[in-house]
Amino acid sequence: MREVAVLGIGQTKVDEHWDKSLRVLAGEAILAALQDAGIPTVEGLFVGNMMSGSANHQQHLGAYIADWVGMRYTEAFKIEAACGSGAFAFHTAVMAVASGELESAIAVGVEKMTDSPSGEITAELATASDADWEADQGLSFVAINALVMQRYLYEYHWQHDDFGAFSINAHANGAFNPCARFQEPITTNDYHRAAMIAEPINLLDASPMGDGSAAAVIVPLEHLQRANGKPVIRVAGSAAATDTIAVHSRREPLWLKAAEVSARRAYAQARVEAKDIDVFELHDAFSIMATLSLESCGFAERGQGLRLALDGEIRPGGRIPIATRGGLKARGHPVGATGMYQIVEVVQQLRQEATGTQVDGARIGMAQNIGGSGSNIVTHILRAD
Amino acid sequence: MREVAVLGIGQTKVDEHWDKSLRVLAGEAILAALQDAGIPTVEGLFVGNMMSGSANHQQHLGAYIADWVGMRYTEAFKIEAACGSGAFAFHTAVMAVASGELESAIAVGVEKMTDSPSGEITAELATASDADWEADQGLSFVAINALVMQRYLYEYHWQHDDFGAFSINAHANGAFNPCARFQEPITTNDYHRAAMIAEPINLLDASPMGDGSAAAVIVPLEHLQRANGKPVIRVAGSAAATDTIAVHSRREPLWLKAAEVSARRAYAQARVEAKDIDVFELHDAFSIMATLSLESCGFAERGQGLRLALDGEIRPGGRIPIATRGGLKARGHPVGATGMYQIVEVVQQLRQEATGTQVDGARIGMAQNIGGSGSNIVTHILRAD
Repeated sequence: MREVAVLGIGQTKVDEHWDKSLRVLAGEAILAALQDAGIPTVEGLFVGNMMSGSANHQQHLGAYIADWVGMRYTEAFKIEAACGSGAFAFHTAVMAVASGELESAIAVGVEKMTDSPSGEITAELATASDADWEADQGLSFVAINALVMQRYLYEYHWQHDDFGAFSINAHANGAFNPCARFQEPITTNDYHRAAMIAEPINLLDASPMGDGSAAAVIVPLEHLQRANGKPVIRVAGSAAATDTIAVHSRREPLWLKAAEVSARRAYAQARVEAKDIDVFELHDAFSIMATLSLESCGFAERGQGLRLALDGEIRPGGRIPIATRGGLKARGHPVGATGMYQIVEVVQQLRQEATGTQVDGARIGMAQNIGGSGSNIVTHILRAD
Repeated sequence: MREVAVLGIGQTKVDEHWDKSLRVLAGEAILAALQDAGIPTVEGLFVGNMMSGSANHQQHLGAYIADWVGMRYTEAFKIEAACGSGAFAFHTAVMAVASGELESAIAVGVEKMTDSPSGEITAELATASDADWEADQGLSFVAINALVMQRYLYEYHWQHDDFGAFSINAHANGAFNPCARFQEPITTNDYHRAAMIAEPINLLDASPMGDGSAAAVIVPLEHLQRANGKPVIRVAGSAAATDTIAVHSRREPLWLKAAEVSARRAYAQARVEAKDIDVFELHDAFSIMATLSLESCGFAERGQGLRLALDGEIRPGGRIPIATRGGLKARGHPVGATGMYQIVEVVQQLRQEATGTQVDGARIGMAQNIGGSGSNIVTHILRAD
C-alpha cells in the first residue's frame, strides 16, 4: 500500500445556491481543486452525496459529474454514508490510489438541499436512521440528538448554557471563512435566547443545511517530489468504523464507539496519539456531537469535553482547536459535502493558509465525519512534512 | 497491489418478496456467502444499491446492513452507480483488500423495488439518466433503449424478430436457475407475439424488475492456500470507464465506448483477450444491450452481435455463452443487485457448479455491469486456477 498525498483543494461557498445546479456546484469545486493542483485531469472521480436521488431527482452522480467536467472513460461512482458520504468518498479515493489501481483521483462531496422538489428535507435526512424503528415513528434527526443531549445534561450535571461555548467558537471562526454560510460572530446572549427546536437543542446548537461542494486531488506521495511548490500534505491515516444504526441499540448512548475505534485505527496508521493532533475538524452537526467527539477520540474524559470548550481550549490558540473554519455550525452542513469541507479545511491549516484562524505551526490535522447518529464514522489524519 | 480471490458466494431468489425487507434480503445473501466461505465475519462491507433512499425511505445501507448481520465497528458504506451499483461495490471491495487496508470484505448488491412507498419505480429508474435533458423531458429508460434499438435496426438492416434469439437463450438458461425470477423457457412465437412497450422494444426484450440480493466474500489470494476446498477463483481484472451520461451526447450512439474501454483495461490486467473468455455474463437489461455489449467487447463486428445469437453461439455450448443463469432477462434485474448476481453466476460457472447450463471446463469468466444508458461500465474477469 503506497503512501498518498493531497495535491490540490477546491470548494464553493456554502449557501442557498438558487442559481446553481448540483453539477455546477460539483464542477466548480473540482475545477478549483484541479487548478490548485496544477494538473488538467485525473484518472478517477469519487463522489460523496447523500440525497440527490430524492432531493434532485438525479442519481448516478459518478458518470453525471464526470461528463459535466469533461472527463471521459474515467472511473467514477458515488459513495453514500449519510452525512459521512464526503469523507467516505475521500477514503475510497485514497484506497484507489494507494492500491496502485489509479495514479490520480479526485474526491468531491456535493449536496444541494435548498430547492428539493419534494421539499421534505427533514424526512430525507431521516433516511439515515432506521426507517422501521426511528424515522417511521416520527423521530427526526434533531429529535434523536435532543434525546442524547438531554441524557448528557442529566448524567454529567451540565447546564444547557454551557454548550454555548461550542457555537460561539464556531461562529467566531466562521467569520474569517469566505466559504462559510454564516460569517457573523454570536454572543453568549444570542445563544441563551435562541429559539428552542427540540428541547434541549436550540437553533444555535444545530448546524444549518445548505448547498455546497468541496473537493481534493489525491496522488501517490512519490509524484509530489515534482509538485506545485506547496507544502506536501500526506494522508497518514484513513480508517472507518460502524456502530449500531440506532442509538437505542447501544449499551452506552453517550459514547461514540465508532469514533473511538476509527480514531484509534487512524492514530495507529499515522503513528500518533490524540495529544499530537494540532487541529481537529470534528462533526459538530449538533453541539452535543462536538463534546461526544472530543471525548470519544481521547481529548477529554467522559462528560468533560464541554470543559475544553468552556476553558477556551477549542479556539485556534487552544489545546485542541476545532471547527477552525466555522465547523458544521457556521460553515454549514450540506450533508454529503461536509466531509470534504473538513478535509479542505485541514489542508488549509497544514498549508498555513487559514487566514484569521490559523493554528500556529499546525503540522498534524484530523478530520472526522459522521454518518447518522454516530453509526458510521471515518477519521482522517493528514500531516505536513 | 496484491491479488485477491472470491472465497464465498450467496444469493436470494429474485422475486416479489413482499414478506422480506431490504435488510432481510441483504442479510440472507451475506450470511449465505459467509457460510459458503466458511468464515464467521469480515472486516469490510460494501453495499451496492441504487434507489433505497426513495424506494424504501432508507439510506445509509452500510451501517444499516452491517448492524443487521451483527457486524460492529467494521468498515461499511454504500456504492451507487445506477444499475451498475452491484459490480461497483465488488470493485470497491477488491480495491480495499488489494490495497492491504482490509484482510477480508463482502460486496453485497441489494434492491427492493416491488413495494416502493412512492410506487413510481419508472421515475426512480430515470434518475440514472440526465434529469434536465432526459428524465424531465419524459424520456424513460425503456424509451432511451427503444431509440437506440430502432437506430440499430435501421443502420444494420436487421428485423425485430431476430432479437428473439437473446431472450430465448436467457429464458432457456433461467429454467435451470432456482434463483431466477422466471424459470420457464419461451418460444419464437412467444417473442413474436409479445406486447409492445416502446416500439421496437416488446415485453420480451425487457428485463423484469424484482427484489433480490447477491453477495461475495473476497480475501487476499494467499489466504486461499488454506481455503475451503473449493476451486480458487481469482479476480484477474477489475476495471471501469464512464461515457457521457446521455446517449444523445455521443458521436456513435450504437457503440458502447465505456464497455470497450473497461473491457480492454480488464483484459490487460488479466492478460487475456476476448477469445480467451469462456463465459460472459453481460448486462442484457434490454436485448439491444446484449448485442451492443458483444460488439463493444470484441466478440463480434459492428452490427453483427445478433449473428452470434442467431447462430446459437451464445448458448452454453457455443463460442461465447452469455446469460447462462438467465441473465437480466430471466434471472431478473433488481438494479443495484444485478452486478453481484453476475459475479455469483460467473463463480458458479468457474466452480463447475452451474447445474443445467454449465459451460464445459469454463476457466475464465467475464461479468460486465452497466449503469445508465452505457454511461458507466465496470468489467470483471475471474479465473479458476
